[in-house]
Amino acid sequence: MDKKYVVGIDIGGTNTVFGIVDARGNVLAKSSVKTAVHQDVNLYINDIYEEFLKIAKDFGGIGNIRGIGIGAPNGNYYTGNIEFAPNLIWKGIVPLSKLVSEKFGVPAVVTNDANAAAIGEMTYGAARGMKNFIIITLGTGVGSGIVIDGKLVYGHDGFAGELGHTCSVRENGRQCGCGRKGCLETYASANGLARTAREFIETRKEPSLLRNIPCESITSKDVYEAAKQGDKLAIEIFEFTGKILGEALSDFVAFSAPEAIILFGGLAKSGDFIIKPTVEHMEKNLLVLWKNKVKVLFSALKEADAAILGAGALTWEV
Amino acid sequence: MDKKYVVGIDIGGTNTVFGIVDARGNVLAKSSVKTAVHQDVNLYINDIYEEFLKIAKDFGGIGNIRGIGIGAPNGNYYTGNIEFAPNLIWKGIVPLSKLVSEKFGVPAVVTNDANAAAIGEMTYGAARGMKNFIIITLGTGVGSGIVIDGKLVYGHDGFAGELGHTCSVRENGRQCGCGRKGCLETYASANGLARTAREFIETRKEPSLLRNIPCESITSKDVYEAAKQGDKLAIEIFEFTGKILGEALSDFVAFSAPEAIILFGGLAKSGDFIIKPTVEHMEKNLLVLWKNKVKVLFSALKEADAAILGAGALTWEV
Repeated sequence: MDKKYVVGIDIGGTNTVFGIVDARGNVLAKSSVKTAVHQDVNLYINDIYEEFLKIAKDFGGIGNIRGIGIGAPNGNYYTGNIEFAPNLIWKGIVPLSKLVSEKFGVPAVVTNDANAAAIGEMTYGAARGMKNFIIITLGTGVGSGIVIDGKLVYGHDGFAGELGHTCSVRENGRQCGCGRKGCLETYASANGLARTAREFIETRKEPSLLRNIPCESITSKDVYEAAKQGDKLAIEIFEFTGKILGEALSDFVAFSAPEAIILFGGLAKSGDFIIKPTVEHMEKNLLVLWKNKVKVLFSALKEADAAILGAGALTWEV
Repeated sequence: MDKKYVVGIDIGGTNTVFGIVDARGNVLAKSSVKTAVHQDVNLYINDIYEEFLKIAKDFGGIGNIRGIGIGAPNGNYYTGNIEFAPNLIWKGIVPLSKLVSEKFGVPAVVTNDANAAAIGEMTYGAARGMKNFIIITLGTGVGSGIVIDGKLVYGHDGFAGELGHTCSVRENGRQCGCGRKGCLETYASANGLARTAREFIETRKEPSLLRNIPCESITSKDVYEAAKQGDKLAIEIFEFTGKILGEALSDFVAFSAPEAIILFGGLAKSGDFIIKPTVEHMEKNLLVLWKNKVKVLFSALKEADAAILGAGALTWEV
């Protein structure tokens, strides 16, 4: 019998979600485990395996699984390892694909979460049929997956595509979690937008709905809700964010001349508030030859399934 | 009889040089014609063909030529055209590969000059055996060729790799020939270095050998000669240039995680004066995971032959 399905596993700092996916991109069944409860990664993989057996019963069990794709922070496609992930409980190098493959008895492939998202878009989403595009994930941080000539770019060491850590503001840029300053991620992520909101609240005098919220607890969602109600300061916060993101995108275009840039993740859900200023400032900064040629699209994957789909899609070609 | 040689043609705004190249990267014979004397591109190609016949006599003539590779400003690999090249006499779209191929009766391939240089380095030079590297050409302007997974990056439209036009200085950046401001090219090219020299001469008070030269006529070579004599201001001009270049390189690394960055062209010949500050500031700005891992190398191609070799190398795989 042909093996009909793949498993996609998306590892986050808190939760790990996984599911069984068919070739058309339907998530047939899914489940989750807590990521951070086991110091021993083997026990964690045991947990996933036990949960997997439960959901796999109705789909032919492990005998119907071609392979397992895993999206993980600092996941390296070449080595199959998670390497020095600051937000995971396991320190140093974890030979994840080896451990998972041994436990499940099928091939397992690892990459980072943004790369998994890029493969998901290419296989099932907004980038179907495209050979050159960039996905930018706007979540807690800013991640990216770059596809050139139909292939994900891994680079010499497997870590290519850290566009969230290109420098947006050279002088007096914001402190980034990576130890450097001025990274795109400190401005264009959900956290970055909230930082901008706090700065604007403190340094500006205009009235704003956001002033009703304790400054330190403002989230990107609060800014979105205020913007929807026409709050001018909230709209300006999006414009500031979109300007920095758009400027960065124009430089990314100069690198790989993509057909499209796809925005994915929490902040992308703010719709026109984020995309209008982003496109405006990207266009303003593009070389003439690319003006009005590069599409900026939203992800076409269902948010709840996207991570599983992307990770799973990794393994169709294994 | 196997066709043993290729022809490399390097089109510049003033001169066009070309040569017959063997598989080991020896330029067996070369010649040149003036680029800008014919409004009619067909007459220009006739000129090249007549000159080619003279140098080809000793090497079996056209019957021994596998193909012709052409490096040209705004050359597009996908279309074979030169498209809207500001520094060439022919305006609009010139179907160059078609015209050359018809005239010579062998396949002809076009790309831009920096891409040709990248292929030259990969085939014969500093990047032999590398699958992921970036070449930066530091000449009148700043060009780039990006190789990922052993292949040159052309992007969706054939124009990928315009790294000289990524933005180095967002606020009050220098006016660039492309119409935008703050491009890397306005700082890190030979012209950019000379602009920095003029700025330093005007705004600083220190004595300098450069003050003996009329300010408007200072060239990058003057700055190099002064630096060699220990002139502190000249050395600082290189440091300023290397800082901006190094910062840019660190962002390029975040994109494609190359094994090496190769510097090519006039300014690269300034040796340690340019490479030391470039590497220092690249390292300072790299994400931790890439520190001390990315080589910065000089081109290993003989300067006079590099453009011909690069263009010729384009066509070995045709």
